[in-house]
Parts: sequence; C-alpha cells; structure tokens
Amino acid sequence: MGEFDLIARFFKRPTPQAVLGVGDDCALLQPAPGTQLAISSDMLVEGRHFLSTVDPYKLGHKALAVNLSDLAACGAKPLAFTLALALPRADEAWLAPFSRGLLALADAHGCELVGGDTTQGPLNICITVFGEVPVVNGRSQAHLRSGAQAGDDLYVSGTLGDARLALEVFRGTVCVPGPVFEAARLRMEQPTPRVALGLALRGIATAAIDVSDGLLGDLGHILKQSGVGATVNTEIALTLIKTRVACMNATDLSGTELLPSQWLTWALAGGDDYELLFTASASARSRVAAAAQASQTTVTRIGQIEQERGLRLVDGQGQAVPNTYTSFDHFA
Amino acid sequence: MGEFDLIARFFKRPTPQAVLGVGDDCALLQPAPGTQLAISSDMLVEGRHFLSTVDPYKLGHKALAVNLSDLAACGAKPLAFTLALALPRADEAWLAPFSRGLLALADAHGCELVGGDTTQGPLNICITVFGEVPVVNGRSQAHLRSGAQAGDDLYVSGTLGDARLALEVFRGTVCVPGPVFEAARLRMEQPTPRVALGLALRGIATAAIDVSDGLLGDLGHILKQSGVGATVNTEIALTLIKTRVACMNATDLSGTELLPSQWLTWALAGGDDYELLFTASASARSRVAAAAQASQTTVTRIGQIEQERGLRLVDGQGQAVPNTYTSFDHFA
Repeated sequence: MGEFDLIARFFKRPTPQAVLGVGDDCALLQPAPGTQLAISSDMLVEGRHFLSTVDPYKLGHKALAVNLSDLAACGAKPLAFTLALALPRADEAWLAPFSRGLLALADAHGCELVGGDTTQGPLNICITVFGEVPVVNGRSQAHLRSGAQAGDDLYVSGTLGDARLALEVFRGTVCVPGPVFEAARLRMEQPTPRVALGLALRGIATAAIDVSDGLLGDLGHILKQSGVGATVNTEIALTLIKTRVACMNATDLSGTELLPSQWLTWALAGGDDYELLFTASASARSRVAAAAQASQTTVTRIGQIEQERGLRLVDGQGQAVPNTYTSFDHFA
Repeated sequence: MGEFDLIARFFKRPTPQAVLGVGDDCALLQPAPGTQLAISSDMLVEGRHFLSTVDPYKLGHKALAVNLSDLAACGAKPLAFTLALALPRADEAWLAPFSRGLLALADAHGCELVGGDTTQGPLNICITVFGEVPVVNGRSQAHLRSGAQAGDDLYVSGTLGDARLALEVFRGTVCVPGPVFEAARLRMEQPTPRVALGLALRGIATAAIDVSDGLLGDLGHILKQSGVGATVNTEIALTLIKTRVACMNATDLSGTELLPSQWLTWALAGGDDYELLFTASASARSRVAAAAQASQTTVTRIGQIEQERGLRLVDGQGQAVPNTYTSFDHFA
C-alpha cells in the first residue's frame, strides 16, 4: 500500500460543507458571512500523549477529541480539520481502526476531514481543527481566556482526575478494582469534548479554557490573561472525581488506602481531563444551569473570581489549603 | 525553560492581520468578504525530510517554505500559519535560529504565526498554512489539479533536480566540486516557494501543482484529476538542472563522469524541487510570460496536455523516450 492508496482508502471522504477536500495542494473553506474562523492545533506523540498499547480506534477518537475540546472552549462550531500523520509503516491493521475512531467522532460533530499529510517516521498525529464563531454587532462571540472579571463565578464541566487515575494504574503506582480501572481508562483514552456546552455558553461565559494540563494550571492562564485572582473550593473539587465514588478501596502498592490528598492532587493537577473551565457573571447562574441542561453536561461551581491577584484554595469550611500543585509542562 | 516560556520567547509575535494569535485555546481569523480560505498541512520528520545535521535556521525556512509552496500552487495569498513542534528537549541553541529562519520567511510573505502546539518527542515539525483566494462572479480563483485541458501548454518554474543532486552528495553516491555542492545544497535546504508566480498566474493557469515528489509523479496527479494525458520534452527538462551547467565534471564514486540519463532522472523524478508545474491555454503564452516577468520567476514550457491519456516522453527530435521514472512515495 503506497502513500496515495493509504490516503484514498482511509482518509478521503466526501466534504459536503467544504468547497474542496482531500486531494489537491490545498483544501478550500468558505466561512459563512459574519463569522470568524477559530483554529487550533494539537500534536500527539507516542509515550507522551498515549501509550503504545492503546487501541488505535480510541487513539483516533482522542486525537480529534483534544482538538475539538479547544473549539469547545472558544464556543466555536466544528467545521473541518486536517490530519498530518507520521507512521513507522503503512499498517492496515492499525490504520483501519484508527481512521474509524477518528471519523466516527468527526461525523458526530459534522467536522470534515479536508486535508493533511502522511509521511514515514516515529508515530506522530498532528490535527488542526477549524470552527466557526459568529460576530454579533461587530463583536466576536468567542470565549477567550482574557474575559474573566472580579465577582464572576468559576465553573468546571463533568469530572476531574479520572484520566490521571488510569495513568497511575498503567504506571503501576496504584491498585484499583477492575471496573473502576475501566471507567477511568475510558476517560483517559476517549475523552468527551464539551462542544455542545461550549456552544450553549455563547453569550454567557465571560472566559473559558479547556482543562488539559491540570485544573489549577489552566486556571492560571485565565487569571493571568484576565488580570484577576480566584478562590477554589477543594472540597467540591474532590467530589468531581467520578471514579473515587466507586472506589473506596483503591490502594497504593503497599496496600495502604489512598488519602483524600492524593485524590485531590489528581483532581486539581491531574491533566488530560478535557473539561471546560469557565467563568460567568453571578447574575447568570440560571442561564448557566440552562446551558448545562440543554447540552446534557453537568457543570459545577467550584470557586469565584476576585480582584486580588493570585490563586487561593479553601476547604469546605472556608479554611485556607496550601497550594502545592504543579500542572503538566512538557519541558519543565 | 518551560513550555510556556519557550512559546513566549521564540514563537509569540504580534498579529496585525489575525483577530487573535498565539496564547488562547484557538486563534481567530476573519477572511475578507468574497474570499475562500486555502489550507494546507505539511509534516517534516528528521531523516526523511531533512538531515539531523541541517542548520536550524535553514530548517525553519524550509518547514514554512514547503507549506507556502502549496499555497503558491493554488494561487492563494499567504495569511497565517500554525506550528506544532515535537522536540527532544527545549534547546535554546536550536530554537533561536530555527525560529529566526521560520519567521524571516513568514515576514517576507506577510504570513503570521497564529498558534500551534509544543511537545516533547522525536523532532517533528508540522505546519498548517492559511491563504486567501478570491471568488470572482461566484467562481473560485484557486488553481486546482483538475483544470488541465487538451491543447494546454505545460510549464514548470525555476530549476529541477538540484535538491536531489545535493541529497546524493550527502548520501555519498556522487562527487561534485565544492561550489556546485553549495548551490545544490541551497536548493535542498532553502527552497524558494513560488508565491509571487502563483498569484500572478491567477486567471491564467488552468491547473497547477507544486513539484515536491518529482516532476513526473506530480504531473501524474494533474493528468489523473483532469482526465487528460501529456507529452514532456526531456531535452528541455535536462536544461533545467541549474547545477549541471556549472558541473561538467561531476562523477560517481568510481570517478566516472555522470551520464545525461542520470541527470535526467533527477530532473524528472528527483523530488524536493518546490517549483510550480502548471498548465495554461496556448493562447495565453504572452500572459504567462508577463506573469513570469512580473514575479521575477523563470518559467519554461516543457510539454503539452493532450486528450490521449497517459504520459509520453520525447527527446529533442521528438523521438519517444521510455518512461522508467518513479516518484517519491513514503510507503511504497
């Protein structure tokens, strides 16, 4: 199977929305009048973003999901994407399920594969995704990291820390019952991009980011770019670990039960959650609840934005909790 | 130096054209009314697309140049690009010249770096580039591979085969004098994307492609997608090898002078030329010449498009030459 057969067999698809898809020097998109194009790129490398043993179907899903998550954060409607793929070899047994997983998620979001590149090399998946954001009265409806204001509520969607739990099980540092591991692994290997929530929050969220490097680290970007501070309730964060509820007998390798502080680290700084962290005016609580319901996504208020710079953690009684958490950094 | 310092130091730049550049979940572009967005992605892998010894400044240039070459083929005006980069480590001595080479070419074409990704991993450079194509009377001005018609002239810009000569010297299969090697190496390491020519050919070229895998292989895409055939004059192709003119005493390792047939292989199937191969009506010869002059780019008529399918090679006397050339395929 040569390069062009490979593309034709696994990656060439009809593109009813795009003007021109795979198969020329460029793809052509024609954004609707009065819209902006939101663009994001994520590169996934074996051993960093996924394990070599991962099911290729799930990897195809995840590679697009992490990109759609960026569109979701901006409140952009997915339109199209390009896929650049470096492969050690043209292996049909890998390519077939990888492309199925990728395109199943793409179809679910009406996001068309319009172009890309294939080359021989260490496995590397680079997707660039395109979404549409309306401009209303000359004002972009995109949620930026810079829009949070003192007094805003701070929310996070879905659950936290489960992907990190799965990673720790793979690393062999933690033991959990099989069904708990399966649930955690699903969150790590097939994250759900919160696209519908992102769209529902247009005109409601004042700022947003997707949680990929860990909640507190990503919150730091909002605080820095908005020039504000925040207080986060750690007791609420601890309730957001889906697998913890089902997993009272998780232990470390010596058989000792895991402490809440260990779980909290994963919730606050675990990474790979792909949830939306966003802010909205306190007067918009009922609209946030309606957006959550309309998009069938849970959202939880975990703190508030304050004028005083810096990040403060408190427990359920409002007592200060030391912040010793560091988020993921590829080069730190 | 952490991931975000790295981005801030080497890749964060003002973006006067883009609505929003590096530093949020998405970049935002607002294409001009009445235009389409042309999109292309190219991934460069060490050992496949460049040697590990390449000067990082030249590599930065080449990584963007091969993408701009795709925009040139479509006749799209460069607007912006994203850069996804996997690096073994955050090495300032590599990043500084790499970003300088990349951004110097970007600046020369008014093409803004608006986003991307950085991660740890085997060196891999994935650029997605965005350009603008006008739509005139409801008709896209993009040059596609599918527009060639029987009777059209076939042209190629610039020179051919020099990049391949340099590669063969690096591989140790060929000896050439030092200055010849330097000229060939420049073509391999710092190709010139024919952006100005691509723009000048709007409304003139009927089809176009950039020559990256070898002239005949890339011509094959035009022929297949246009449903036509072609005859190519090999004697003319042989004159397009810039370094050959200066290099009458190139030899193989046994000291035997290289045969014209060896040079011809590099001209017709060498790869990495990044020239434009395009077709235009025979009635447009003076307009093609004017476009070449306006863009200060040489173009050479090397054949013609014919109704009869297939690719035919002829020598200077019009005698058939066997086609034994294969173009580059990453997985063949």
